Amino acid sequence: QAKGRVPWKLGLQVIKIIFITVQLALFGYDASKYRQQHENTVKTFRHVFLKGWDATREIVSYPPATGQYAVYTKPEFFQNIDNVIHKYATITDTTIGSYGYDSDDDEISSMWFCKRQYRKGEVFAFNVTLHYDSTPVDSCLEIAPLYPAGDKRWENFHLQDFLKDHNSSVNFNNLIYAELKFSLKTVFLKSLTRFDSPDCFLFDIVIKFDNSLHDGQVLVFLNADSKKLICNSSVQYVETDKVDYYWRQVLNGIVILLCIMSLALCCRSLYKGQLLRQQTIVFFNKQYGKSLSFQDQLEFVDFWYVLITVNDGLIIVGSAMKFQIEQKIIEGDQYNVCSILLGTGNLLVWLGILRYLGFFKKYNVLILTLKMALPNVLRFTLCVMLLYCGFCFCGWVVLGPYHIKFRFLSTTSECLFAMMNGDDLFATFAILNTHSDLVWWFSRIYLYVFISLFIYVVISLFIAVIMDSYDTIKRYHEQGFPKTDLQD
Amino acid sequence: QAKGRVPWKLGLQVIKIIFITVQLALFGYDASKYRQQHENTVKTFRHVFLKGWDATREIVSYPPATGQYAVYTKPEFFQNIDNVIHKYATITDTTIGSYGYDSDDDEISSMWFCKRQYRKGEVFAFNVTLHYDSTPVDSCLEIAPLYPAGDKRWENFHLQDFLKDHNSSVNFNNLIYAELKFSLKTVFLKSLTRFDSPDCFLFDIVIKFDNSLHDGQVLVFLNADSKKLICNSSVQYVETDKVDYYWRQVLNGIVILLCIMSLALCCRSLYKGQLLRQQTIVFFNKQYGKSLSFQDQLEFVDFWYVLITVNDGLIIVGSAMKFQIEQKIIEGDQYNVCSILLGTGNLLVWLGILRYLGFFKKYNVLILTLKMALPNVLRFTLCVMLLYCGFCFCGWVVLGPYHIKFRFLSTTSECLFAMMNGDDLFATFAILNTHSDLVWWFSRIYLYVFISLFIYVVISLFIAVIMDSYDTIKRYHEQGFPKTDLQD
Amino acid sequence: QAKGRVPWKLGLQVIKIIFITVQLALFGYDASKYRQQHENTVKTFRHVFLKGWDATREIVSYPPATGQYAVYTKPEFFQNIDNVIHKYATITDTTIGSYGYDSDDDEISSMWFCKRQYRKGEVFAFNVTLHYDSTPVDSCLEIAPLYPAGDKRWENFHLQDFLKDHNSSVNFNNLIYAELKFSLKTVFLKSLTRFDSPDCFLFDIVIKFDNSLHDGQVLVFLNADSKKLICNSSVQYVETDKVDYYWRQVLNGIVILLCIMSLALCCRSLYKGQLLRQQTIVFFNKQYGKSLSFQDQLEFVDFWYVLITVNDGLIIVGSAMKFQIEQKIIEGDQYNVCSILLGTGNLLVWLGILRYLGFFKKYNVLILTLKMALPNVLRFTLCVMLLYCGFCFCGWVVLGPYHIKFRFLSTTSECLFAMMNGDDLFATFAILNTHSDLVWWFSRIYLYVFISLFIYVVISLFIAVIMDSYDTIKRYHEQGFPKTDLQD
Amino acid sequence: QAKGRVPWKLGLQVIKIIFITVQLALFGYDASKYRQQHENTVKTFRHVFLKGWDATREIVSYPPATGQYAVYTKPEFFQNIDNVIHKYATITDTTIGSYGYDSDDDEISSMWFCKRQYRKGEVFAFNVTLHYDSTPVDSCLEIAPLYPAGDKRWENFHLQDFLKDHNSSVNFNNLIYAELKFSLKTVFLKSLTRFDSPDCFLFDIVIKFDNSLHDGQVLVFLNADSKKLICNSSVQYVETDKVDYYWRQVLNGIVILLCIMSLALCCRSLYKGQLLRQQTIVFFNKQYGKSLSFQDQLEFVDFWYVLITVNDGLIIVGSAMKFQIEQKIIEGDQYNVCSILLGTGNLLVWLGILRYLGFFKKYNVLILTLKMALPNVLRFTLCVMLLYCGFCFCGWVVLGPYHIKFRFLSTTSECLFAMMNGDDLFATFAILNTHSDLVWWFSRIYLYVFISLFIYVVISLFIAVIMDSYDTIKRYHEQGFPKTDLQD
Repeated sequence: QAKGRVPWKLGLQVIKIIFITVQLALFGYDASKYRQQHENTVKTFRHVFLKGWDATREIVSYPPATGQYAVYTKPEFFQNIDNVIHKYATITDTTIGSYGYDSDDDEISSMWFCKRQYRKGEVFAFNVTLHYDSTPVDSCLEIAPLYPAGDKRWENFHLQDFLKDHNSSVNFNNLIYAELKFSLKTVFLKSLTRFDSPDCFLFDIVIKFDNSLHDGQVLVFLNADSKKLICNSSVQYVETDKVDYYWRQVLNGIVILLCIMSLALCCRSLYKGQLLRQQTIVFFNKQYGKSLSFQDQLEFVDFWYVLITVNDGLIIVGSAMKFQIEQKIIEGDQYNVCSILLGTGNLLVWLGILRYLGFFKKYNVLILTLKMALPNVLRFTLCVMLLYCGFCFCGWVVLGPYHIKFRFLSTTSECLFAMMNGDDLFATFAILNTHSDLVWWFSRIYLYVFISLFIYVVISLFIAVIMDSYDTIKRYHEQGFPKTDLQD
Repeated sequence: QAKGRVPWKLGLQVIKIIFITVQLALFGYDASKYRQQHENTVKTFRHVFLKGWDATREIVSYPPATGQYAVYTKPEFFQNIDNVIHKYATITDTTIGSYGYDSDDDEISSMWFCKRQYRKGEVFAFNVTLHYDSTPVDSCLEIAPLYPAGDKRWENFHLQDFLKDHNSSVNFNNLIYAELKFSLKTVFLKSLTRFDSPDCFLFDIVIKFDNSLHDGQVLVFLNADSKKLICNSSVQYVETDKVDYYWRQVLNGIVILLCIMSLALCCRSLYKGQLLRQQTIVFFNKQYGKSLSFQDQLEFVDFWYVLITVNDGLIIVGSAMKFQIEQKIIEGDQYNVCSILLGTGNLLVWLGILRYLGFFKKYNVLILTLKMALPNVLRFTLCVMLLYCGFCFCGWVVLGPYHIKFRFLSTTSECLFAMMNGDDLFATFAILNTHSDLVWWFSRIYLYVFISLFIYVVISLFIAVIMDSYDTIKRYHEQGFPKTDLQD
Repeated sequence: QAKGRVPWKLGLQVIKIIFITVQLALFGYDASKYRQQHENTVKTFRHVFLKGWDATREIVSYPPATGQYAVYTKPEFFQNIDNVIHKYATITDTTIGSYGYDSDDDEISSMWFCKRQYRKGEVFAFNVTLHYDSTPVDSCLEIAPLYPAGDKRWENFHLQDFLKDHNSSVNFNNLIYAELKFSLKTVFLKSLTRFDSPDCFLFDIVIKFDNSLHDGQVLVFLNADSKKLICNSSVQYVETDKVDYYWRQVLNGIVILLCIMSLALCCRSLYKGQLLRQQTIVFFNKQYGKSLSFQDQLEFVDFWYVLITVNDGLIIVGSAMKFQIEQKIIEGDQYNVCSILLGTGNLLVWLGILRYLGFFKKYNVLILTLKMALPNVLRFTLCVMLLYCGFCFCGWVVLGPYHIKFRFLSTTSECLFAMMNGDDLFATFAILNTHSDLVWWFSRIYLYVFISLFIYVVISLFIAVIMDSYDTIKRYHEQGFPKTDLQD
Repeated sequence: QAKGRVPWKLGLQVIKIIFITVQLALFGYDASKYRQQHENTVKTFRHVFLKGWDATREIVSYPPATGQYAVYTKPEFFQNIDNVIHKYATITDTTIGSYGYDSDDDEISSMWFCKRQYRKGEVFAFNVTLHYDSTPVDSCLEIAPLYPAGDKRWENFHLQDFLKDHNSSVNFNNLIYAELKFSLKTVFLKSLTRFDSPDCFLFDIVIKFDNSLHDGQVLVFLNADSKKLICNSSVQYVETDKVDYYWRQVLNGIVILLCIMSLALCCRSLYKGQLLRQQTIVFFNKQYGKSLSFQDQLEFVDFWYVLITVNDGLIIVGSAMKFQIEQKIIEGDQYNVCSILLGTGNLLVWLGILRYLGFFKKYNVLILTLKMALPNVLRFTLCVMLLYCGFCFCGWVVLGPYHIKFRFLSTTSECLFAMMNGDDLFATFAILNTHSDLVWWFSRIYLYVFISLFIYVVISLFIAVIMDSYDTIKRYHEQGFPKTDLQD
């Protein structure tokens, strides 16, 4: 009965998919570049400020290529801090990137040396005596701009002397963490085209020396949070860019229009379905004197339409945000929300195309199989999840202290999930090579049992469930589908 | 018949699962922190004492990022030892962690230079002559505190001179291993809250130079065993902690109570089942004049109850230990035992929930399938195990000398297990790139045959076995289950 | 009916496969060596010219062993360039490879320092002011040979002074990229045999300092394009090589001959099939008064013959190119095209052998199963592709900025493809450890859903489809195949 | 009929398996230690002789952690060689291992500097002119012991001066490779027990500078071949070792005895089977007047017995070799042959146990399934192999020059094999990131097609084949097996 309408609506969907994919690609390219510039800037700060920072630390890999960046002795600690201060004092001259101090006259601005420590803290390790007051106390000291930027005398600035002059000191026994804070302004030129004009940012840089565990190792982190500033930019653009800028906004408009059309059509169909349901209820009541079951009523709701409605909604909201980001109306930080909206919408649009494939008989077999297998698969998944949860908690508690992969509950789950799909098995065994015999044996039994159970039993049962559905659907196709109450 | 009781007992299990999971999470967090502090302390010692120690050596990865930490020449050997002594003499001043010498007056305490060597050992390599007496002889030399801690004169201390002064020397031809031993006291502040008060430890540090293979390479290890000391601590706590401490003990109490209740209920049910069995035996004897088979008698034991009984037992014992650990009654080293008890208990609790899912018909199909497939899967696993053992032994003996993964029987088994699940295949081939043609060909044939056999044949048969069970159970559901003697 | 002809044609195919595989092996060996020499030369240039170039950067691995080769400060930038110039001035003396300047008299030739910059570019970061004219302007400066090659005075050459002398400078605010260009001639001896005579190349070396992102990090690349020169070589060959040279050309000839024979036979068979088709059409028209359907007409085209025709074509063209490459008639750069032609041809030849296996009944079952399953598999693949596209776009846009694997659409697809086959799961999770909670949760849901869906549902359905075909074919074998119109 | 004999023979097999596994474990431990000592010695040589040798180079991993150890400039080349000579001159004093010169009086012995070069070789790169005579010429120069070992004057020894003094030089244009050769004697103490007495070895060390490709990169290799020498050892053993030594030989004896018994029993059974076959042939001839088919005759050969016979043979030969190795009658180098004999034997013994499991009905189903599926699996494997060969050759030729994994035919095959089992997919894609667009597209299509085809189609068909066999066997069990001619 629905055959007459197919090509028209399908056509709309196909046009929609083309436009939103083009739009998505443009957005993805922008977002990626925005992110990369931020990352590279932080990378640059680490190279400049952190002593002995190595390019191998820039690679986020698993397992990490090298141990954490940390200091272990007092001289190292002060040398690291002094190095930061010396570099900060000359940064406008030496770096290739253009950084400016957070001051109005291009003069060096203050740094802050902050620390959090216990109110009282004395340790006499030789006779294991300690006196503590565990209330944390925060204090900050301004390192004022003694000399102008780039002055040679900065080379002789040492934090330890500076602290002594200000009647302060660092007592590592009660130090929880120390921070060196300062701000730098910078400009991101971007592509210098009309719709991609430069951004200005204030980076609040915090170099944290974390001694909270008091185990001899002080981890060093450099983080930089960016705040957007309004640039005083006067840029002469190349002329051709102008056209590009307008086309991009036109594309946004087209996408929104297409989605609204698609949304309207789907809503109409859904509404019609509801009307029909009302009539049928009345008819059944009158004719047979019985009411329709909930399941039968659900038959009137076409879930494909609901799916398309949802993806249209997501894309309309996402496109509107994208429009505002490109117009610089809202902050660039909302790239994430926008990308999730557009990305999920796009995923659902592609999924929605499956509906139209279902009109062909051969494809229908497959789609029906998936539909039929779904409840059983979900049911089985629930059973498996219970078991999986048990293994997660057990692995996390027992193996967590010995294995980087089991340190957090989320990574434990990811590790188990990866292993049940045949990934990283040997490495997991190998890294669990602890000195404690008890834990060693436990880990071996735990891993062998988990992997065998999930790979050989669980996956096989998944296959069994789905094959059974496939057979059933094929039989139905040959012998006819069983009829529901409604169809009779 | 059992339907009336379901929600009540299920409710108890659900409440139990919530409480013990919360308890487990708290314990896991503590154990992980305890372990991390110990590890970081040893890491700090390695950074401080071992010359040229590199952060890449801290990452436990497979394959390791770098070769073993070793010395190859005599000057290196003595420089390494001298470096340890120099660092030891100044450790209280320079390190960020607070370490104290093992003496009552904060004075530097003695180190011990120990060595094990053959009673006699002379090698004249140029004419391949050797005279040995293979009886091992141990000897130790005290390096007394010549100067006070932090004294500059320690810089001029050289072990080689020191040995000469004491009429001793290191003869590498008969040296089996040399050790440098000393102790350091330290304090772990932890979170400085009431129920998490500081711990004091004496670390016995042993730096071992292992020459037992006499092949030119002397491996260097630093190990540190910790002994708990009683702290003289006076800590002023933040007030809110007190409440937290009590809640934690209350949680332990609730968990134990819940488990006892659950245990009692299960035991009652199991006892009732036994009573029924007695009666049925008598009845059968009287009525039909035949005795019940063992299999029929087993029907009266509900294995789900046995499972719950076991997990209750594990959690009660584990919680009691946890209580004692938190009260500092027993040593913190028993974290391992406690975590295994609680972890395994938790795993079984989650497994036990499956019982209640079995009351729903659709879920029951899956659970019955697993139950029915189990004996066949185990039988097949036994067959496979025999083959697997053969491959393990064969691989270990032939490839062990050429491949780090086949060095030990346990790692051979892990490697084969990982490979049959599709992990790390290429790397295993690639690393087995030996110069010996015979071994190269053997390894290729061995690996190809093993992988093909296990991936294509064994896994397929597992799927066949489980699908067959699924089909059988589905047929039973449609046509009725076969009846046992008892049910008639 | 076809049985009589089998061994003869099969024989031809078997002989063909032997010869072309030998030919391919020889070609592969050559191409590999040609490529390796080029790569090693570029590697040598990097070692010589780039300051602090490290051997770990030579390994192309995933994830990369270390961060990108870059400079961050102005002094580093100029030191790097000066180093290149100093090395270039002495390269003929110091390197082991024999490199010559691109001049006729062995005198050092000019280098070029080129830069592309915005026409105007001023940044005052402290008050976020910028004045730009985004038109890119290119300019080059010749670094003329001031001193002879190897002269000590080169050591005192500094680019910054040189630029100042020429009223130029590097303004990093408007610099897009800077390049240092020069050329070196070199000779590849190769195996110095008659058919493998030396090649001479001019390498145009470009060292690019890429500041296009203006984010503080200037990436440094060394690329070297080679142009072939005609050598003035006088080489005295070892005598036995001559024979080898001729044999190789004879082999090419044999392969071409065999393929032409095979091609002729296949074309004849295809032609005969067409004749038969014409006759049948006429017969049907006359006898039954109905025309043959397109599907029935396709039955007269043996696709195996088409396959063999195609592979013969590919190999004939490929062999002809190979002949010319070995004769030095065409450029060695066309190794790629030639290797793709020969490689694909070879692949299809092996595939063609399957045809002859199909004559045995037992093998036929398998081949028919594949043939029958193919349409369903392709149909299902189409459905899956739609879903897969959705996931690709969505993953690329949302996760691209946070994960090296999702940076490009192609790598996103590769990553998803690898994961759905159980590869690199944990690493993908682990690397996606971003600071943004929103993205973290999205990534976890995205990955868990994608992997579960594709591994548990999609693969199971593939198995179901293929098993169904196998069963059908087996039933046909026992009960007879269904007859088409034609067979009746 | 065979039931009566089971437990007795099974018992023998079980005892055999225990003894040979113990024997294998002892042998594996020895062989591994033997190998490790050799490897460590070579590792030591590399650390001592090669300048800038790094511990990361000791790890055999894939992909390698760092680029190849090579020199690129002439000064580096000569510094490397001078360093070797200086180290060689002081090796007896400085290293921890005990090495002696290959001379009778502990005096330093000569080194040899050898080179292979083209008879004539001149390159004028600037005008791409070259004159060569490609005949390779070998020449060696003795570096005589000018000064005694450990003499300070060695520090001033430079190869370049030395060559000039001897009217020689290194011309890198015609140098194919240069080698530095010398010998060192050393002693392996081993465990210094009676049956594990010290071994003396002469190591012929060759440091090769390989310039054969003439592409600017000279690879440096250190290889050391060992020759066994007869030690003049006088060792006083700890007394308890003696017993251990005899027990080990007793164990060898028991194993050989058990295997001979097992062999005898199997041969008898096989012989009886042959007798029965003869009688049956005669009977059939007489009674029915027809001869037995070959397949029916094969029924009289129990392949399990053949299997056991083979493994007995392997173990007897292996044990005999092991006896000789432990008695030092034959060279220790034959560890490889011996380990392959014993290892394969052991594998087959475990496999043989499956026979006895087949006596239980439930296990028999599985074993019969495997037996029945085998021919079909092998047939299908053949089809797949053809396709696989095609992909191997094609991948090797086209991708070989661009990808380390496709460089050799064997690694190509290993890479494809690993990928079709879901290993290392993404890394393979990622490393194939070439600059040539043509190759990039080819590689993507090639990999996607290969992986999809083999993972989704081939593996599914394997499962289909095996499940079909399982179903058939199950049906047979319920309905009776089809009868052969013989059974009627």
